[in-house]
Amino acid sequence: MMRRQTILKELRQANPLVHCITNIVVANFQANGLLALGASPIMADSLEEAADVAALSSCTLLNIGTLNPLTVDAMIAAGKSASANGRPLILDPVGAGATAFRKQTIVHLLDSLDFTLIRGNAGEIAAIAGVAWQAKGVDVGSGDADITDAAKQVARQNSCLVAVTGETDIVTDGERVIRISGGHELMSLITGSGCLLSAVAGAFLATDSSDALHSVAECLASYKKSGEIAAEQSFGPGDFSMNFLNTLHSIEAQDVTDDQFHYVQEVHS
Amino acid sequence: MMRRQTILKELRQANPLVHCITNIVVANFQANGLLALGASPIMADSLEEAADVAALSSCTLLNIGTLNPLTVDAMIAAGKSASANGRPLILDPVGAGATAFRKQTIVHLLDSLDFTLIRGNAGEIAAIAGVAWQAKGVDVGSGDADITDAAKQVARQNSCLVAVTGETDIVTDGERVIRISGGHELMSLITGSGCLLSAVAGAFLATDSSDALHSVAECLASYKKSGEIAAEQSFGPGDFSMNFLNTLHSIEAQDVTDDQFHYVQEVHS
Amino acid sequence: MMRRQTILKELRQANPLVHCITNIVVANFQANGLLALGASPIMADSLEEAADVAALSSCTLLNIGTLNPLTVDAMIAAGKSASANGRPLILDPVGAGATAFRKQTIVHLLDSLDFTLIRGNAGEIAAIAGVAWQAKGVDVGSGDADITDAAKQVARQNSCLVAVTGETDIVTDGERVIRISGGHELMSLITGSGCLLSAVAGAFLATDSSDALHSVAECLASYKKSGEIAAEQSFGPGDFSMNFLNTLHSIEAQDVTDDQFHYVQEVHS
Repeated sequence: MMRRQTILKELRQANPLVHCITNIVVANFQANGLLALGASPIMADSLEEAADVAALSSCTLLNIGTLNPLTVDAMIAAGKSASANGRPLILDPVGAGATAFRKQTIVHLLDSLDFTLIRGNAGEIAAIAGVAWQAKGVDVGSGDADITDAAKQVARQNSCLVAVTGETDIVTDGERVIRISGGHELMSLITGSGCLLSAVAGAFLATDSSDALHSVAECLASYKKSGEIAAEQSFGPGDFSMNFLNTLHSIEAQDVTDDQFHYVQEVHS
Repeated sequence: MMRRQTILKELRQANPLVHCITNIVVANFQANGLLALGASPIMADSLEEAADVAALSSCTLLNIGTLNPLTVDAMIAAGKSASANGRPLILDPVGAGATAFRKQTIVHLLDSLDFTLIRGNAGEIAAIAGVAWQAKGVDVGSGDADITDAAKQVARQNSCLVAVTGETDIVTDGERVIRISGGHELMSLITGSGCLLSAVAGAFLATDSSDALHSVAECLASYKKSGEIAAEQSFGPGDFSMNFLNTLHSIEAQDVTDDQFHYVQEVHS
Repeated sequence: MMRRQTILKELRQANPLVHCITNIVVANFQANGLLALGASPIMADSLEEAADVAALSSCTLLNIGTLNPLTVDAMIAAGKSASANGRPLILDPVGAGATAFRKQTIVHLLDSLDFTLIRGNAGEIAAIAGVAWQAKGVDVGSGDADITDAAKQVARQNSCLVAVTGETDIVTDGERVIRISGGHELMSLITGSGCLLSAVAGAFLATDSSDALHSVAECLASYKKSGEIAAEQSFGPGDFSMNFLNTLHSIEAQDVTDDQFHYVQEVHS
């Protein structure tokens, strides 16, 4: 397996338009992060235009962070439009296990739509897999499940990629697994670092979906490295946000290092 | 009366989950402020899950900054759930006197729910008390009412704490009054400094409600001191926001000083 | 024609209250930008109070960035109230040409309301004028239309001012045209720089509408100069946001230079 190190450069040339149906907490940070990276954001969550916006965008991200019933209808319309137009469709299942409403919504979204990628933290992916995991609100929890197995199960059941992000990231297509190291703990002290990552993954997939697993892996590694670089310049979470946006703007593929990628040997693949 | 100087440390150990039904302007800053301090945010304002989220959270904050009728129903459900589960419930009556809709909503919320704390600026608390005060939109106004009397009246009528924040802060349980000094005028030049304070007060109350009046006083003093420290490092409101988040992350109880607390002798208590 | 160089000073003395019905992406940045400049924000988008808030505010801004049908009703109510009370009314037609829903909404708003100013980028103003322009989502596109003619046409048809902002800004009343130079490309790498500008233009018009064309021109020049000053201090889009807010707070009329203004000789005026 070889890394594709030119995706970031191509992304900045292509300037993909990332359609986000997202939450009120992170919309600003997502938009600024996409602009800083070299993509363009469009946030449109009304049923009246969700399908049209998905059709004109390079990819669509559905984020359930501040969910309400109207938004779910818009998500279904946008998701169907994205797939009908051959665009990557990403799910960010924020707080997946927290309430019955979120659980039901995720079942509804997974039943109705064909996702390219689901990106969440360990608690969220465990909740989708239906395995035990100690979740606490929308933050990462800790538990006993083998999260790699849970991710592979969710990937196989939904015929999509699954990325689990945390101290170490995992991305799997249900068979192959790549672990990505790097990053910094300050990333968990700002809101929306995971939400923005899902949008950035959409931009990477929109740029190159020929080998989607490796596109996501390259995205995860670039994002973790941006966090490391930004953390070196930061005193706390306040200036880290700012330095992280600066770094998304300035990072180049060569800043990402091969030792961030760990290709897991799979017995059954 | 003795200050409890260990609340901040305990808060960071307990990492309380603060449920915010809040407005689109400050949701991001509130979430980042809670994370910086050592708490966790969950913003969920849909009727379908508001009660569930309140039940799993350490406290619930209702902020009426960008109010609509759907949100009011969610606020009622969340507030009842928080109280039924023994969790602190905080009201931030943003722009309380500005429109008939806000006045009616506040009457409805106060009639339906049992708040632990109401935190507002002088104009907002005066509006709830029904006394004259020159309010201008959602910003602090100036007027003739004795704001301490208004705060005590609101506290007694609603059997809760009332905090009035501004150049000097006041917190009262209807009898006892503590004035808190400190802070910096830059705090009034960034949006959401009051809204975030209400969320932070929820985190303090969730950590220690054994002497709720003093928990809120310690919160107000810590917040004002964070503003002072951040202002010393800032050129204007832009970098003040960033430095304030950094300071919420780094401030320790010993940074707060006894001379910030002014215990008002009460004739009738 | 003479510039009025005292508007900024008067604005800070008058502290106009700017009512924004706006989108979830930029609400925070708009509020912080208005506070930094010396105005006050009030974001209220519920039909239940939109007219009341418009009546108590110094001006009202309607921004269609994250549009939904409920918000459109509130916009109509707010816009009528603003005009009935003699207050400037500003339209920011975000992503005007992107979807049928946005096109229909803009037609509805223009038919129902009397705007003082429409401020958009070239693609948005071209879409309103119905001329060819290559728009891409909510970002500025590039195309063949003579954008000055399109702006004049929209201004005449709607009896209002039209400002087109981009590398060079234009403001026209349908006859006279002023071009404004300055600014920095980092302004296009942060979300909401155009949205905030529309709100700032409202504050300028609320301060002095005696010669509205020149008030807007002074606003555009001040904003572009703020971008230039902030960019000199910035490494990337992350710290540019912060420095831009600081600069809006510190900029004085004398920082704006006469050579930023280009009065276009009009044959027919």
